[in-house]
Amino acid sequence: MREHYFEDYAVGQTFQGGPLPPLTAEQIKAFAAEFDPQPFHLDEAAAERSIFKGLAASGWHTAALTMRLFVGSDVTPAGGYVGAGGEDMRWPQPTRPGDSLRLAIQVLETRPSRSRPELGIVKMQLTTTNQRGEILQLVKPVMMVPRRPVASPEPAPSR
Amino acid sequence: MREHYFEDYAVGQTFQGGPLPPLTAEQIKAFAAEFDPQPFHLDEAAAERSIFKGLAASGWHTAALTMRLFVGSDVTPAGGYVGAGGEDMRWPQPTRPGDSLRLAIQVLETRPSRSRPELGIVKMQLTTTNQRGEILQLVKPVMMVPRRPVASPEPAPSR
Repeated sequence: MREHYFEDYAVGQTFQGGPLPPLTAEQIKAFAAEFDPQPFHLDEAAAERSIFKGLAASGWHTAALTMRLFVGSDVTPAGGYVGAGGEDMRWPQPTRPGDSLRLAIQVLETRPSRSRPELGIVKMQLTTTNQRGEILQLVKPVMMVPRRPVASPEPAPSR
Repeated sequence: MREHYFEDYAVGQTFQGGPLPPLTAEQIKAFAAEFDPQPFHLDEAAAERSIFKGLAASGWHTAALTMRLFVGSDVTPAGGYVGAGGEDMRWPQPTRPGDSLRLAIQVLETRPSRSRPELGIVKMQLTTTNQRGEILQLVKPVMMVPRRPVASPEPAPSR
């Protein structure tokens, strides 16, 4: 897969990722046991009585699966998917057992880095949905992407 | 541990979480293999040649460990740690093998929910650091917290 430099990205470009295999209740519970051990992520009966009204994945599990989809997409920045952070993360509804996640990606903004001339900053909108098109997560990662190396100028002809 | 309702939170309150046991290279690689399979999260030699100049945890691993610290803190909202999302996430530097993570929490903003009168919105600043006080992650989760139930009024005495 071709690697992309900063100069290859333009506002409005779109990319796709996924789908992933359907998420299982066991995967939801295993992630939660390690990182987000709350009853509504661990136990069906407790989840029924919670605000989620059924077993729900940790939002951070949805975030991690979104990264999996992002890394598997054809965005392919040179030097890898390196994020400085993310903005406006939202979980409009929880990921459920059986959900098959997919990712829509759009370039929102590109600008040279002020502090590091060899890098550019590319902000993208990531929209994670399930097989019914329901939005599970929105986030705008701020990516650091290498600028295309400048070819050495031809040596001036000697006279 | 006492559960807190929306009315119990006030701007400027602080809470603490952690520390966690030192993170191992094996844990970094296992998370990356599942969610963020890039060479600088999976292999020491490849990581030395990358922008990270050594094995670095996925930012989403740092985020998941931060949730673990948050859930273990004494914030203890009634109904659990339920986030609508997060703002201004930043990874100023990567989490490394041997890092022992801890969490500082500060209440930034509280307001009643417009759409759901039984809930309040509490925004917090989470600052994740290692044992040297280096900042690994900043994020502002937007939490949904139940309002304190109103006690039923005493029945009026009959005359």
